[in-house]
Amino acid sequence: MNDETILLAHGSGSRLSHELIEKNFLPSLSNPLLAKLDDSAVFELSGRLAFTTDSYVVSPIFFPGGDIGKLAVCGTINDLAMSGATPSYLSLSFIIEEGLTLGELKKVVSSVKTSAEESGVKIVTGDTKVVNRGSADKLFINTSGIGIISEGIDISGTNAKPGDKVILSGSIGDHGIAVMSQREGLKFSVPIQSDCAPLNKLVSQMLEASPQIHCMRDPTRGGLATTLNELARQSKIGIRIEEDKIPIHDGVRAACELLGFDPLYVANEGKLIAIVAPEDAEKILAKMKRNRYGAAASIIGEVTDEHKGKVIMRTRLGASRIVDMLSGELLPRIC
Amino acid sequence: MNDETILLAHGSGSRLSHELIEKNFLPSLSNPLLAKLDDSAVFELSGRLAFTTDSYVVSPIFFPGGDIGKLAVCGTINDLAMSGATPSYLSLSFIIEEGLTLGELKKVVSSVKTSAEESGVKIVTGDTKVVNRGSADKLFINTSGIGIISEGIDISGTNAKPGDKVILSGSIGDHGIAVMSQREGLKFSVPIQSDCAPLNKLVSQMLEASPQIHCMRDPTRGGLATTLNELARQSKIGIRIEEDKIPIHDGVRAACELLGFDPLYVANEGKLIAIVAPEDAEKILAKMKRNRYGAAASIIGEVTDEHKGKVIMRTRLGASRIVDMLSGELLPRIC
Repeated sequence: MNDETILLAHGSGSRLSHELIEKNFLPSLSNPLLAKLDDSAVFELSGRLAFTTDSYVVSPIFFPGGDIGKLAVCGTINDLAMSGATPSYLSLSFIIEEGLTLGELKKVVSSVKTSAEESGVKIVTGDTKVVNRGSADKLFINTSGIGIISEGIDISGTNAKPGDKVILSGSIGDHGIAVMSQREGLKFSVPIQSDCAPLNKLVSQMLEASPQIHCMRDPTRGGLATTLNELARQSKIGIRIEEDKIPIHDGVRAACELLGFDPLYVANEGKLIAIVAPEDAEKILAKMKRNRYGAAASIIGEVTDEHKGKVIMRTRLGASRIVDMLSGELLPRIC
Repeated sequence: MNDETILLAHGSGSRLSHELIEKNFLPSLSNPLLAKLDDSAVFELSGRLAFTTDSYVVSPIFFPGGDIGKLAVCGTINDLAMSGATPSYLSLSFIIEEGLTLGELKKVVSSVKTSAEESGVKIVTGDTKVVNRGSADKLFINTSGIGIISEGIDISGTNAKPGDKVILSGSIGDHGIAVMSQREGLKFSVPIQSDCAPLNKLVSQMLEASPQIHCMRDPTRGGLATTLNELARQSKIGIRIEEDKIPIHDGVRAACELLGFDPLYVANEGKLIAIVAPEDAEKILAKMKRNRYGAAASIIGEVTDEHKGKVIMRTRLGASRIVDMLSGELLPRIC
């Protein structure tokens, strides 16, 4: 049964499409909104809303520590959380290459379910398209999400101020190296797992410590270096970080050395950067350390009014160097 | 310049990604929400919201009467409108195959802009991924959308009642045949254009005539027949339609005869079916006929309490036959 493959007709809007949805999606994901199967989900919601979208094209679709289903839920939840929003509702749209097995699809749907449950969001609307063999690569997923931002929260990439502290929630590079080693069939003595995780509960705990967080962003494609550069540009400030404060797992460091990657540019899927007023930094950090996804959090640097729009790193050897935005492509199809 | 092609690095989150967005997307689509470039768009919205998603994989991406950009905006707007919602905000997510030309991408973005303007929605958040050559087919687009439903409107596939009238907004089969003939290089003496169009203004005029519309749905994949079957099942009623009331362009009819297609199953992208109380039917129809997208609207049948869950058609010859849901695949990648 799980060896059955998905056919073009499963995406035609025909009886086969309906069966695919009714047998494979609804039992796992069902809730009263999704089960109505109308063109739109309808619900009451009021206030300041955050709305975001991401398409996921990671290859391979299964990797150590996760799969494309977990990634698609966590990635969009994290984008909402980075705006200070409590994620409420997600959409889920599949583009399937003809020939994907039903077993693979079920495994992905099961990951979607697990991650949605962990983070407390509901999948309320969806879509399934099937394209002919060779016109996609197994499975692409789009998730879009809606969340509510509480009163008094104003988080944006434009809000960093000189003197602010830069907090990183944990080790960098795990996701990118985990996916890449799976793709290339590399084995390391220390197995490397993706850090893919929903960060919304970590963020809500941070906001309990202080609702005045200035900027928050998850360093995904382009890694820590690119995300810090985006924030420096958007806020028109400088950022200075300390290399020896940035946690990197030994396995990731070794893999990066072997492969010639700079871990500062490798993607993360369960990490965040927060830029906060200096007086709030320690209490936010203390809260983070009590959450499993922030246990290794540390203050890695601060915001300056020098070298505006740039990121400077003091290296382990005590020298300073400019850390630029990623300029080309490091690892394609990492998310 | 427009011969330049999209590279993998344009999807890496790197400087090239930022340039692609800043030079090609923002100038066309910009509005204060999108221009912030944060992870989520943030806006105030209150009430009963509709939320929907669709991925578009149409092949070819340009066809008579539209392209994938117009389709992606209109399709999602129409899904919102079918819930009785006024569409407010759209997300826009591209999966690009390496090698798409910048000229093609710009043409699609320009169609997105035109359709968003016509319908009065704002594109407020987006995403761009690039996959290696052979891992997608030129361009896939996901749009998700949010709209607001006014007080007193309750439209759902479950609301049809015996005695209700079934209104169709115009001719069927245009989109499917237009895309198929472009794909297969077929030429017909009467050129066939896709009917792809945003129906939100038509719907708001219909709701002015009567807010008591019971069901509304756009007959896309699977065509009129499949959509009527969905409504019959969801509402647990029967639907009886009259073949000679269903408008079909001569060119579409000829193409269908030639190719062995039944136009009842061919996709539409600018048509709607409304199921309404008998006393509301004429006034809603009158309003529709004054809108360019409803000029050829007609009452094609009614809801019965016989043969529940089924659609029966009285043919031109006076016989009755069951019109079933599409069971296999008619035209893949039509939207």
